[in-house]
Amino acid sequence: MPKNNAFLPIAEKYFERDPAAAAHALEAMDSGDAVEILKTLPLGMTSEAMKHLDDAYAAVLLQKMPRSLFVRIANNLDVRQAANIFHEFPEDMRRDFLELLEERKKREIQELLIYPRESAGQIMTVDFVAFHSDLKVKDTVSKIRYLAQHNSKSSYIYVIDKEGRLIGVLRMRDLLIADGNTLLESIMHRDVFSVNCFLDREQVANEISKRNYFAVPVVDHEHKLLGVIRAEQLISDVQEEVTEDIQKMFGASGNERAFSPISFSLRTRLPWLHVNLMTAFLAATVVSFFQDLIAQITVLAVYLPVVAGQGGNAGAQSLAVVMRGIVMREIPPARAKQLVLKEALIGLINGLVIGTITGIIAVLWQGKPFLGLVVALGMLVNLTVAGFAGALIPLTMKALGRDPAQCSNIILTTITDVMGFLAFLGFAALFRGYLI
Amino acid sequence: MPKNNAFLPIAEKYFERDPAAAAHALEAMDSGDAVEILKTLPLGMTSEAMKHLDDAYAAVLLQKMPRSLFVRIANNLDVRQAANIFHEFPEDMRRDFLELLEERKKREIQELLIYPRESAGQIMTVDFVAFHSDLKVKDTVSKIRYLAQHNSKSSYIYVIDKEGRLIGVLRMRDLLIADGNTLLESIMHRDVFSVNCFLDREQVANEISKRNYFAVPVVDHEHKLLGVIRAEQLISDVQEEVTEDIQKMFGASGNERAFSPISFSLRTRLPWLHVNLMTAFLAATVVSFFQDLIAQITVLAVYLPVVAGQGGNAGAQSLAVVMRGIVMREIPPARAKQLVLKEALIGLINGLVIGTITGIIAVLWQGKPFLGLVVALGMLVNLTVAGFAGALIPLTMKALGRDPAQCSNIILTTITDVMGFLAFLGFAALFRGYLI
Repeated sequence: MPKNNAFLPIAEKYFERDPAAAAHALEAMDSGDAVEILKTLPLGMTSEAMKHLDDAYAAVLLQKMPRSLFVRIANNLDVRQAANIFHEFPEDMRRDFLELLEERKKREIQELLIYPRESAGQIMTVDFVAFHSDLKVKDTVSKIRYLAQHNSKSSYIYVIDKEGRLIGVLRMRDLLIADGNTLLESIMHRDVFSVNCFLDREQVANEISKRNYFAVPVVDHEHKLLGVIRAEQLISDVQEEVTEDIQKMFGASGNERAFSPISFSLRTRLPWLHVNLMTAFLAATVVSFFQDLIAQITVLAVYLPVVAGQGGNAGAQSLAVVMRGIVMREIPPARAKQLVLKEALIGLINGLVIGTITGIIAVLWQGKPFLGLVVALGMLVNLTVAGFAGALIPLTMKALGRDPAQCSNIILTTITDVMGFLAFLGFAALFRGYLI
Repeated sequence: MPKNNAFLPIAEKYFERDPAAAAHALEAMDSGDAVEILKTLPLGMTSEAMKHLDDAYAAVLLQKMPRSLFVRIANNLDVRQAANIFHEFPEDMRRDFLELLEERKKREIQELLIYPRESAGQIMTVDFVAFHSDLKVKDTVSKIRYLAQHNSKSSYIYVIDKEGRLIGVLRMRDLLIADGNTLLESIMHRDVFSVNCFLDREQVANEISKRNYFAVPVVDHEHKLLGVIRAEQLISDVQEEVTEDIQKMFGASGNERAFSPISFSLRTRLPWLHVNLMTAFLAATVVSFFQDLIAQITVLAVYLPVVAGQGGNAGAQSLAVVMRGIVMREIPPARAKQLVLKEALIGLINGLVIGTITGIIAVLWQGKPFLGLVVALGMLVNLTVAGFAGALIPLTMKALGRDPAQCSNIILTTITDVMGFLAFLGFAALFRGYLI
């Protein structure tokens, strides 16, 4: 894109009129082109556009910019967003780029980077309004009038004591309807719900969603008010949290993104592929026990992928439904056992239906009635085990305090492969005489 | 649980002090016991507790209550929550139970049930504040004072014209700092963002999250204001949306919940198991082509599950990362091709590493160098195809306007099974002379 482009005035109009939509258009472009556009736009517009960009993509663009432009934009960013963007940087780059910032900005960002990834402290905003409890309503209103030019979002007003501890909360409306000479402490609501700065964001989301609050204050261990988390900020965090679960179920890292570097993808995926390989050899070992049988009755090999595939899929259905129940907090511990039994029963019924059909196909295809019986029985056992294991694995991991998503599908397919082959080939051995 | 229980006063205290936590405790109980408790508590407390219950569980409890209690509670429910709960009822029960309600309540709930499941109209709340544009600030404030006793949550005030069309928006703070005689139309913000009542909730969530609004107004095609969606309501909707994706990837219905009736689970899962069975027979057919070869070299059967398992898992990793990118809107259409190539390249490298290791194990275990080569080459081809297909499937479905999650894992394992067996057994046929 040439520097003095005829399209520039149009692009500027777009960024001025609807920065969110323009930023979205930017995300759809090649990152090199996007950087060229940001270089050409006036700095104010560029900074405004950065606000609406996805953090991961903003990180990519910032890394590709000339250092001088990076510095000017980064110093303009809201501290919380800057911290989120820096979390997306590779660790060594993060250090180098932070050094380029103004001392104060750098320190504020580093403070936010102290909190664990995805904790309340890391995702909170420090852009909130808090007043002391001995302030009068009319003085509060005039302070708010003054702040109105600078501060954009607050609709709760927090009340703190002399030590900065959170002791109450007010709505704008409470001020609107109160007498001007009242002290805040006499109209504030004292039962203010807050979360600790180290709480995981998933739990923060659950609290906000359960109580239907649109914001919660974040405090430290001394109950000092540190920041605020607003519901609208959590929406994309929640999407992230659950999509990370999908990745972890298959043994990809929760941190990997579509455009993560290939080296990162390999580093996180290969270890689990090795784990999967070991477990695949467990299944292979089961098959190897029956090698003589397969040499005699080769058609058994044809049904191995059918038995394994159905078990894996039926088990994954149970796994997915139970994972959903865990994320949505729909499974009280007292009902976990009931759920495992229910899934095993579904597996049994699935096994009866699918087993019968597969058996009939086997009889029709190979013309051997006992092959049909062996396939049907193998399927029945495998699908029952699949339903049972698909529910038991995530619930057990959760009960043990582990991440229920972590490679749960790898564990599941190991069980269904091993049990499926044992049952199918075991029944074949039993009916050997009728199969040859 | 006996009616007059010594624990009742304690239970009442709990429901009074922290209805959200008490409702959560209720969710952890057997539904029969929970109904007994709700029957015993004063009606006001029961209604308050219902507000905090998960909609699906609330539906279960309501169905189990005596009809008279159901009527009293349901007439007390917020219309929006009632509609959500009724969405969880089986269709015939929904009709019967709706008939029991007061005429006005029934009509209001039915109006919300008109909107498609998971649309803006269905999830919006009608509990909002709107004033006409020719109202003065001081009159607005006195109206708000009056409403303050009834209305709980608003922090945006919407401004409508004579026909009820949305034309502006105000914050409480705008009123707080304005002169009393000003008209609303002269201080309102005219660039108010709204969504259509038929828009899907996932897109509403994306708009709110992208623009960082804490609420959006919902309008009909004439731009008449119908309701409001608040960010905090969307958090659990978003969790639901993404966990439904996990279920759909494996061919379970998005609507199934942990405690759905077994008949419902079977009805939605069995069709996909049949699809999976057909595709498994595709893989079986490939194996059957090579039956003579397997009869000669039985050890090939031992490696079938290894090749298939690794392909399925590596492909699922790609699939999960790409699904995440789609949900998080991180993949602009222009970069889709780049992503597919990247995943294929990761598959190739994974294939080189895992293929080499598997080959070495095969040589050590079976003592046949050419078996190692065949396994390694089969793995290389299969893992490359797996990476390619894992990215291509969801992106193609999205480009075609289909749901990218829908049974994507079933399609994927079909491809990896078929390609894996073709490659592995094909190479075995090629090197047949060296394997015997």
